[in-house]
Amino acid sequence: MKLLEDRIRKEGIVLPHNVLKVDSFLNHQVDPQLMFEVGKEFAKRFADKPITKILTVESSGIAPAVMTGLAMQVPVIFARKHKSLTLTDDLYTADVYSYTKQTTNKISIAKRFISADDSVLIIDDFLANGQAVQGLLNIVDEANIEVQGIGIVIEKTFQKGRTLITKRNIQLEALAQISSLENGEVQFLN
Amino acid sequence: MKLLEDRIRKEGIVLPHNVLKVDSFLNHQVDPQLMFEVGKEFAKRFADKPITKILTVESSGIAPAVMTGLAMQVPVIFARKHKSLTLTDDLYTADVYSYTKQTTNKISIAKRFISADDSVLIIDDFLANGQAVQGLLNIVDEANIEVQGIGIVIEKTFQKGRTLITKRNIQLEALAQISSLENGEVQFLN
Repeated sequence: MKLLEDRIRKEGIVLPHNVLKVDSFLNHQVDPQLMFEVGKEFAKRFADKPITKILTVESSGIAPAVMTGLAMQVPVIFARKHKSLTLTDDLYTADVYSYTKQTTNKISIAKRFISADDSVLIIDDFLANGQAVQGLLNIVDEANIEVQGIGIVIEKTFQKGRTLITKRNIQLEALAQISSLENGEVQFLN
Repeated sequence: MKLLEDRIRKEGIVLPHNVLKVDSFLNHQVDPQLMFEVGKEFAKRFADKPITKILTVESSGIAPAVMTGLAMQVPVIFARKHKSLTLTDDLYTADVYSYTKQTTNKISIAKRFISADDSVLIIDDFLANGQAVQGLLNIVDEANIEVQGIGIVIEKTFQKGRTLITKRNIQLEALAQISSLENGEVQFLN
């Protein structure tokens, strides 16, 4: 998605340890117009799939997920992050390890919002090692519902997230694919 | 806003201690179409104000804020919540006490995204005791920028949040105003 790549080229900041900071339009300051285009693009790419709900994780997934939900006219559920959980009877939960923060969070989704009839699209802002997506996939498996696809705003193709998804034969769409951040420079795939 | 009040009547769950749960369309599962209407409504009510940015707090403020940003064509900044903060040089920070969780969080906004030229609209999902809004107002004061208005999706008028805002002479628009949750029943103002 050229609009997005241009924005990354212009405003993305490369930090040590392969971190790409895009907090001027995606995960601290948000550009609603860009997110609207992102949502329409995901809707187009998954147009042939019978999607009933969109799942994401708070907080940075919410803006692109809600815009995709607007374009596809389906509800969005954002999983909550917790340090720990005591009462989990009504929740699907999964552990998510953050390589950046080196901490494990639990994420949860209330059971009453997903049922076996649902088939879902997972949306997230970044795909790197795929820990957040894996957490959502664990919840989806526990709930015994079908995943129709995974939509990622920015993928770092040199990390292992993609493999984790494609080995399950799930359609993966990434709107910007970054193949390298070496020497502080953003390289896109192709 | 009738669409919103109808939805609260239909799906809102009243819990002890004056808690209204609306997690089926606002703060866990999100209805993107409803949020789109919410955004357009805020844009209409603040149409005469020279707003350059929208501020909110993660996570539940993001969906209505981003839709308002879409309608008004301005960027949205969501303040981050932290348990604690060590490095704060580049951040505006404020303490926010949560009556529901009985904990204090710090919220922060990167200094580089707001400047003295900005005049902002604050958007949030709920107004009860006004702690989150007060935190954002503290940041705005520290940054020395002007607040053009505050837009709230659901206000509980029997709690003290409104006073806190109106005594500063800031335009406050709440799309649903709840005057009582007594006996487990939602009563709207008027």
